[in-house]
Amino acid sequence: MSNRPAAEMSLREYLDRLAAKEPVPGGGSASALVGAVSAALGSMVANFTVGREKFAAVEENMRQVLEALEVERRALTNLVQADMDAYGQVSAAYKMPKDDPTREETLQTALKAAASVPLEIVQRCLAVLRLLPELVEKGNPNLLSDVGVAAVCAEAGLKGGWLNVEINLAHLADEQYVASVKEALEACLGEAEALTRKLWQVTVDRGV
Amino acid sequence: MSNRPAAEMSLREYLDRLAAKEPVPGGGSASALVGAVSAALGSMVANFTVGREKFAAVEENMRQVLEALEVERRALTNLVQADMDAYGQVSAAYKMPKDDPTREETLQTALKAAASVPLEIVQRCLAVLRLLPELVEKGNPNLLSDVGVAAVCAEAGLKGGWLNVEINLAHLADEQYVASVKEALEACLGEAEALTRKLWQVTVDRGV
Repeated sequence: MSNRPAAEMSLREYLDRLAAKEPVPGGGSASALVGAVSAALGSMVANFTVGREKFAAVEENMRQVLEALEVERRALTNLVQADMDAYGQVSAAYKMPKDDPTREETLQTALKAAASVPLEIVQRCLAVLRLLPELVEKGNPNLLSDVGVAAVCAEAGLKGGWLNVEINLAHLADEQYVASVKEALEACLGEAEALTRKLWQVTVDRGV
Repeated sequence: MSNRPAAEMSLREYLDRLAAKEPVPGGGSASALVGAVSAALGSMVANFTVGREKFAAVEENMRQVLEALEVERRALTNLVQADMDAYGQVSAAYKMPKDDPTREETLQTALKAAASVPLEIVQRCLAVLRLLPELVEKGNPNLLSDVGVAAVCAEAGLKGGWLNVEINLAHLADEQYVASVKEALEACLGEAEALTRKLWQVTVDRGV
């Protein structure tokens, strides 16, 4: 097993490590990858739209969408590794001697950090989903099916991230923080499901 | 851009190529990757279950599930590249001289092959989904959230594959083949949605 960052692993190596009897990478990291796949598919559609006479009227708009999608893709790609690192911190805190007076605080800090990573995955997948309707309306229609695939992947990444925030919240003592995160999550999930349903339907209705 | 098979590309390179203004890899290939992620997550859960005293009663069953998931993972990993290759065949057929008497037959053969790849993605994602309820019931409960992530990823891979079968069917002349594939797809989609809904609910209900 190599120690290079996840983004530099081959698909095969990453999948082998995901399947292995090792806690990381796990569902959080995988959710970030699926989110990055979604952003990349959106970028492909935008890349097949910009710089073409036929789509000149939406050129500036599509460039902005592309730029925004690339920001999300870079962030989500980094989160594939960040989720693995955050787990390492939690695991190290649990291994501290039980009578160490700094143990509980170290653990709580690590858990908050470990919850914040999948929370960012959720938020960035939602950001991708919010950009997709513009690709449906103004993007190259030959790639409509790729927007549809991007939508279902973004939803999967978001829901996967959501489950991984919940795991870390379960052991957090700061009730106010837990309540505020749960509220933010609920809103994200509802909006994501509605957006995905709409994007999926339009993709299917137009006969792909 | 390298010519090595997709599974040997780094995550970063694959995502860069997915986002690029190149037809492949596209949504079909990405769907296979997301399906492979799903199978790998299922395998992780099974790997944390087998060989442990605590789960001795389900050892044989979990070993079978693990073996089946690994078959699906290997196949889906290969389909990441196979979808790219199938597109190449269709593209080459379209570029044949219009007056070549073998053009139409070559094109139809290429389109059928190009439809059969995402059809296999759909079927293999469904096979993964069908294995997940056993992991919920008998697998290591500490990894329940990973089963939930696997479920949403399998559904995304299946729906992404579905859209990519449809694209290729649109240009196929063999109406009987088209009708039979569409019928098979409808059944897969309905079963997958029902399975995913159930798996998601059980994951959320048990507080992850």
